[in-house]
Amino acid sequence: MFEKPLGMRDTLPNLYETKEHVRSSLEAEMKCWGYQFIGTPALEYYETVGTASAILDQQLFKLLDQEGNTLVLRPDMTAPIARVAASKLLKDNLPFRLAYSANVFRAQQREGGRPAEFEQVGVECIGDETVSADGEMIALAVASLKEAGLKNFQLSIGHAGFVKELFIQILGTEERARELTKFLYEKNYVGYREHVKSLPLSSIDSQRLLAFLDLRGGVEVIGRTLDLIENEKGKEAILELKELWNIIRDYDIAGHIKFDLTLVSHMSYYTGILFEVYAGNVGFPIGNGGRYDGLLQKFGKSTGATGFAIRLDRLLEAIGELDETVPVNCILFSSERRKEAYELAKAKRLEGKRVVLQDISGVKDIDACTNKYSDVTFLVGKTGKEPVE
Amino acid sequence: MFEKPLGMRDTLPNLYETKEHVRSSLEAEMKCWGYQFIGTPALEYYETVGTASAILDQQLFKLLDQEGNTLVLRPDMTAPIARVAASKLLKDNLPFRLAYSANVFRAQQREGGRPAEFEQVGVECIGDETVSADGEMIALAVASLKEAGLKNFQLSIGHAGFVKELFIQILGTEERARELTKFLYEKNYVGYREHVKSLPLSSIDSQRLLAFLDLRGGVEVIGRTLDLIENEKGKEAILELKELWNIIRDYDIAGHIKFDLTLVSHMSYYTGILFEVYAGNVGFPIGNGGRYDGLLQKFGKSTGATGFAIRLDRLLEAIGELDETVPVNCILFSSERRKEAYELAKAKRLEGKRVVLQDISGVKDIDACTNKYSDVTFLVGKTGKEPVE
Repeated sequence: MFEKPLGMRDTLPNLYETKEHVRSSLEAEMKCWGYQFIGTPALEYYETVGTASAILDQQLFKLLDQEGNTLVLRPDMTAPIARVAASKLLKDNLPFRLAYSANVFRAQQREGGRPAEFEQVGVECIGDETVSADGEMIALAVASLKEAGLKNFQLSIGHAGFVKELFIQILGTEERARELTKFLYEKNYVGYREHVKSLPLSSIDSQRLLAFLDLRGGVEVIGRTLDLIENEKGKEAILELKELWNIIRDYDIAGHIKFDLTLVSHMSYYTGILFEVYAGNVGFPIGNGGRYDGLLQKFGKSTGATGFAIRLDRLLEAIGELDETVPVNCILFSSERRKEAYELAKAKRLEGKRVVLQDISGVKDIDACTNKYSDVTFLVGKTGKEPVE
Repeated sequence: MFEKPLGMRDTLPNLYETKEHVRSSLEAEMKCWGYQFIGTPALEYYETVGTASAILDQQLFKLLDQEGNTLVLRPDMTAPIARVAASKLLKDNLPFRLAYSANVFRAQQREGGRPAEFEQVGVECIGDETVSADGEMIALAVASLKEAGLKNFQLSIGHAGFVKELFIQILGTEERARELTKFLYEKNYVGYREHVKSLPLSSIDSQRLLAFLDLRGGVEVIGRTLDLIENEKGKEAILELKELWNIIRDYDIAGHIKFDLTLVSHMSYYTGILFEVYAGNVGFPIGNGGRYDGLLQKFGKSTGATGFAIRLDRLLEAIGELDETVPVNCILFSSERRKEAYELAKAKRLEGKRVVLQDISGVKDIDACTNKYSDVTFLVGKTGKEPVE
């Protein structure tokens, strides 16, 4: 009867407290790593941020303002933060570490259980083009997820630049490379194989593209990758992955890491090292990130950047229910003992307890009330007398 | 160049931390009083929540979904919470205490410094029709504002039912009452006086309407109010205010309270005791609340409710700048001493310190870097050697 729009959700008290707990753990870790939180508006100009966001147009919530400009509900936070960084923060050529905790909006075509509004907690390290910055993203993702209480998870690491170089080298044009890449981000490997077989390639090139699909696993994958790529840029990408591996070992987080060179993203702005986070029981990545060296240029600053975002809803699904139920006391009072009730409540609240003050004349069902609270104190009737109830 | 839509704001790091601090103080107090936080979606159906919200149509951000339904960005939280309470939570006839911390959206006609998206932290007490519940709103507003660090503030208390009764009694129709009320919520007392003088009233009634404007001040106002109203419902309203005064004294918060019977709200759903919060230096109320006994009925449940909301932006303005700058250490390292740097950072972070790890090869201007951080540790070059820099 009183429905919500497609993909819109209410968050009831128990889930809200769990979410708050998990969110603040992530935030605390990000702050410890020197990241500064910022906020951006829910609405942005389509021309400015909407087009930079790399989210499919049909997933954008659009509306018109009074001057006829098209606005969008932000579909991600990376583009808005790039806008803020480029226009307000990047002054002194220094790397900038920013963080956010915000809802983003992506319209769903049908009710398939996917939310159209969901919360992301993430960071962006802007202006640092070293592999150290890529490594920091991975190490911080691991540290924040641990801090949030997630136990079993793995990061798959790939390299958007490597895939692009390899495909262009073999297929000749960016367009053909994009066509083949599409199978990868749909994770449609059967389709990929068929597409490769249908291409007019030498059997060696065809084999290279098929062997590419096997570039998944431990660090040994990097060695095999070297056999596939020939040009300079492609080799640079692999050297980056090698350095990244050393960084990962220095951070002592190798146990959470796998390589997956077939990893690409629907976020078309990624240019270098990128990654996705998986937890055993959740079918979708609970987070993802990577290097996007071209995005800041759209906002007039030419500098590299890397970042990642955790999807809070999926992380909560992976963690499972936390018992965040905090006991609530109830003081049921009648007007004669009101002041006494207020003073008792005040004292208990000062101890950090949660206390509901309830005028008994506002309660129709006393039994239901006593069942609802962990503890009920009656201050009813003339002072000193026990309640009739 | 990279502009934001009208009334949209970025929140940069310092303001963000202050906001977070103030918000969490408000939230902590509300939780101590047994209020449970919930979340609702940013988008709602216009037919369901938009029309119930009592915000002017021209202030609504509207958009169409794929089926052609009109959606609105929520202009307040009271109507969405009434929707959730009525459809999901109100089961056992018990008073329900809910809280929220959320952005709401109100389109601005021109850039006049007013935000079109702002944050409200508020509570709703649903299903309790006693004056105790009204008193709890006022006491909780006072307690949360104190907890948030606000020093000088005052609550003006009025009664929407009283004004309505008085005006209808004298003017005869709801329409004429509404017309006169409009001057009140515009706080246009000159216009009010002129309008009253232009009405074909007996000189006694005219005097009563003019004397009404003086119903502002301490508790003695309530006595004067009794002289003006004659019908039963109007007198009930005054009895409620008398009881409220006793409650306020029992809460020991009379120092923050003034009566202002001329107080009305643009939120048309208020039916009883209502209030606004003012702090010395801010021109607009930083919060407001009141009883809205009719709203739940729009969602199919007939029960009373009362609540209030604090506007976080105005509260921050009233509190003034807090120095929330937390010192951030920076460890500048080169690859030779990377592992050592990681370990040092980890140890400092475990102590709760904020530590930026920065690869020195990612920094173009070392001086700017050392100026930015409260403390910089160099771990550069071969182990044990001091940096050249």
